[in-house]
Amino acid sequence: MAGRPLPVVQSEPSAAEAGPFGKVGIVGLGLVGGSLALAVRKRWPGSLVVGLDDKEVLEQAMVLHAIDVAADDPVVLAEVDLVVLAAPAATNLDLIDVVGEHVRTRAVVTDVGATKRAIAARAARLPARLQFVGGHPLAGAARQGIQFARDDLFVERPWILTPDGDGAADAVERLTAFVAALGAVPRIMAAADHDRLVGIINHLPHLAATALMHLIGERAGDEGLALAGRGLIDTTRLASSPASVWTDVCRTNADEIGEQLDELIAVLQSMRDDLESDVVVTRIFESANAWRARLLAARSS
Amino acid sequence: MAGRPLPVVQSEPSAAEAGPFGKVGIVGLGLVGGSLALAVRKRWPGSLVVGLDDKEVLEQAMVLHAIDVAADDPVVLAEVDLVVLAAPAATNLDLIDVVGEHVRTRAVVTDVGATKRAIAARAARLPARLQFVGGHPLAGAARQGIQFARDDLFVERPWILTPDGDGAADAVERLTAFVAALGAVPRIMAAADHDRLVGIINHLPHLAATALMHLIGERAGDEGLALAGRGLIDTTRLASSPASVWTDVCRTNADEIGEQLDELIAVLQSMRDDLESDVVVTRIFESANAWRARLLAARSS
Repeated sequence: MAGRPLPVVQSEPSAAEAGPFGKVGIVGLGLVGGSLALAVRKRWPGSLVVGLDDKEVLEQAMVLHAIDVAADDPVVLAEVDLVVLAAPAATNLDLIDVVGEHVRTRAVVTDVGATKRAIAARAARLPARLQFVGGHPLAGAARQGIQFARDDLFVERPWILTPDGDGAADAVERLTAFVAALGAVPRIMAAADHDRLVGIINHLPHLAATALMHLIGERAGDEGLALAGRGLIDTTRLASSPASVWTDVCRTNADEIGEQLDELIAVLQSMRDDLESDVVVTRIFESANAWRARLLAARSS
Repeated sequence: MAGRPLPVVQSEPSAAEAGPFGKVGIVGLGLVGGSLALAVRKRWPGSLVVGLDDKEVLEQAMVLHAIDVAADDPVVLAEVDLVVLAAPAATNLDLIDVVGEHVRTRAVVTDVGATKRAIAARAARLPARLQFVGGHPLAGAARQGIQFARDDLFVERPWILTPDGDGAADAVERLTAFVAALGAVPRIMAAADHDRLVGIINHLPHLAATALMHLIGERAGDEGLALAGRGLIDTTRLASSPASVWTDVCRTNADEIGEQLDELIAVLQSMRDDLESDVVVTRIFESANAWRARLLAARSS
């Protein structure tokens, strides 16, 4: 994102049609940032969406009519009302200082990263005029990149907001209205509770699917994989997630993920020790059957 | 399957239309046995399909026109040319002696179970007139039971045959023609090689998905599961498999499954020990990414 600004205004905002935030800056236009840009422009034609990314991504964003202003320099953030950090998690951490330097208004700052404690700690550096509230839309798709962006990506999906203690009540209220208006279901929780929860429901299955795909590939080879069924395809879907995203997640949630991995290893070991007597294996299969039925029920309710 | 025979002849076989086996006995009419019955009747209207199961399942099988003769007594197997054991794996083991006692012809005996060494060992007891060749169609569906049976369940799916040493050449040749004519892709391998391969590509993902669903349910509860994404639904699909099926699989393939679980635990432990430095995690994610692309390519080629 170095270099000169590249502002290209596609439309003028109208105050009447603007949402809780009239001018929204989105830094990082991947699947989530791009989908957010599309959703904001659709919901509030009067808002101004400023997108920051590399030139090539900005060109795609303009072609998709995802943004009003395309820029590869953070100076364009000077007057925004909301900044959404939607770059890779490690980049978002670095962007906190960039935002602090360039945003001149009393803006709200949020992010869409998979872990929330690390960025909250970094955001403590922000000047007092900027109010940070961590965010995490629990929405995604198998394929990354703005070319897969959709304005309905967040509809009926949880969007967790993690306010840092006191003082952010107004920012939380506006962000809650913002994500709800985009069709998401806002949920407020502490950053530590978020990191524990997603450590269990998101990070652990990603790491398990990855370990499994690595091992099965190494052991079975192409010839063995050719005999695999639909079950293996589904079980390992998450193993197609990019390594770069996950090293960031592991580093910023290492304590919670470590604890979950310890527990998974303990469950696998207890099954391994019981293969021939089947008391534990039966109990775990029955528990898993019941929990999966509840997972399907919880998702559809 | 106790009690009197319940023969109900729906059609007379015509030799001209019969396949490699004119009279086929299928013991156990679940998803696989029922689908096989439908497939045989469709492919060879001249064959006679004799189905054995409990009365209630037999009634469903008759309604679905899956079988010509319904019986809950093995005396009806006296003159079959092929016996297919398609009951739960532990029941199949017990059925070997039943088949040995009741089948009076020089028949071929096969099964469709998930492990092959245990039943091959048991089949060594069969009288010389009966030739046993283990079988395993790598086909299935998320839902069990004859109500989900389909005559195309085996089409383009591997059907592994595991002949036990020498002497079964004729039986293997006829079975190969039989499964190929039903649209399956026959593969011949030793029972031990089969058990190792499916231990890796089938049993390990089932156990991993089960351990994961059990642990995540216990830790996250209904409220946490309500926030889960499509990824967790897919990763844990295999955890809905019935415990009764899997205790049999674990007991009859304990050595191979145990070895695979040891290796999975070692991979998870190596990731766990590396969460903050990310050298190993990166390598495993990259390996998993690449193997999953090869899995998708191998399946579609």
